[in-house]
Amino acid sequence: MKYCHHCAAELIHKIPEGDDKLRHCCDACDTIFYQNPNNVVGTLPYYGDKVLLCKRAIEPRLGKWTLPAGFMELGETLGEGAARETTEEAGAQFELQGLFSVLNVARVGQVHFFFLAELTSDQFAPGHETMEARLFEEHEIPWDELAFRTVKETLRAFFADRQAGEFGLHQMDIHH
Amino acid sequence: MKYCHHCAAELIHKIPEGDDKLRHCCDACDTIFYQNPNNVVGTLPYYGDKVLLCKRAIEPRLGKWTLPAGFMELGETLGEGAARETTEEAGAQFELQGLFSVLNVARVGQVHFFFLAELTSDQFAPGHETMEARLFEEHEIPWDELAFRTVKETLRAFFADRQAGEFGLHQMDIHH
Repeated sequence: MKYCHHCAAELIHKIPEGDDKLRHCCDACDTIFYQNPNNVVGTLPYYGDKVLLCKRAIEPRLGKWTLPAGFMELGETLGEGAARETTEEAGAQFELQGLFSVLNVARVGQVHFFFLAELTSDQFAPGHETMEARLFEEHEIPWDELAFRTVKETLRAFFADRQAGEFGLHQMDIHH
Repeated sequence: MKYCHHCAAELIHKIPEGDDKLRHCCDACDTIFYQNPNNVVGTLPYYGDKVLLCKRAIEPRLGKWTLPAGFMELGETLGEGAARETTEEAGAQFELQGLFSVLNVARVGQVHFFFLAELTSDQFAPGHETMEARLFEEHEIPWDELAFRTVKETLRAFFADRQAGEFGLHQMDIHH
């Protein structure tokens, strides 16, 4: 960040009055540009004993398997964003259920949220970000070919809860 | 947003290739400036039968009562942000507990998160954003003088859960 979004003046890196952190500030038009964490929202879609994974057709992690998820957009709720991503990436039909995992990835300034989603069909229509969308039984999950650590932890928690017979809310901090 | 943060060229409002939403784009240096929702993180601090509220010394809602909360910062987890705000705004001593409420305020592009926090002292040292920090019993809560709807809903859920004898996770969408 070098120039002001509003007036194109050069930005200054300083601690504004009443604050205690360095911010990008414009002294010409008196604006502070805060940078804040982003939310990634998605679902864990299941159909009987199987779960849906999508093979990524885009970078990063092209060719790796993921749960449908992406950046939350302005104007939507966490659940609306999770449902939108599931439709966009998998073309799945589902009923959105409760919040299942909340994973802090502080290193990259993100929080990931996954909701459970019960699939009402085993037919999919993957969007352009997805090479293939298919159902996996637990023993078929490509654990070494998963795109993201938050996906792996969410799947682990799902199978553990299923075995225990009860689904809870899982909160985790991902450090690497 | 009129000018590019990186090269100061004029931004164009267009739908980038492979996207379906209007974004602020710089054709000079090929950058897309996404705007995403922000997280507000805070706590519901309690001490025996009482809860801690802070009287705001800053706009918006100067003079109204709130739970300690503020924007999540880069590099921290939801819980770390909630704890930081509780220290900054109330100077409270506490043990952070579980996530208690998640409130979508899509109209303003925010999600609010409140954690329970058990106070280990009834002494406070409010920061410059707070005029007064004090404990309230349920019947003393200034319901008509609360700063934000998400604070009101979180307090309501807390007292209802306490009466029921069990604390759950509360998810709500705030529409007005």
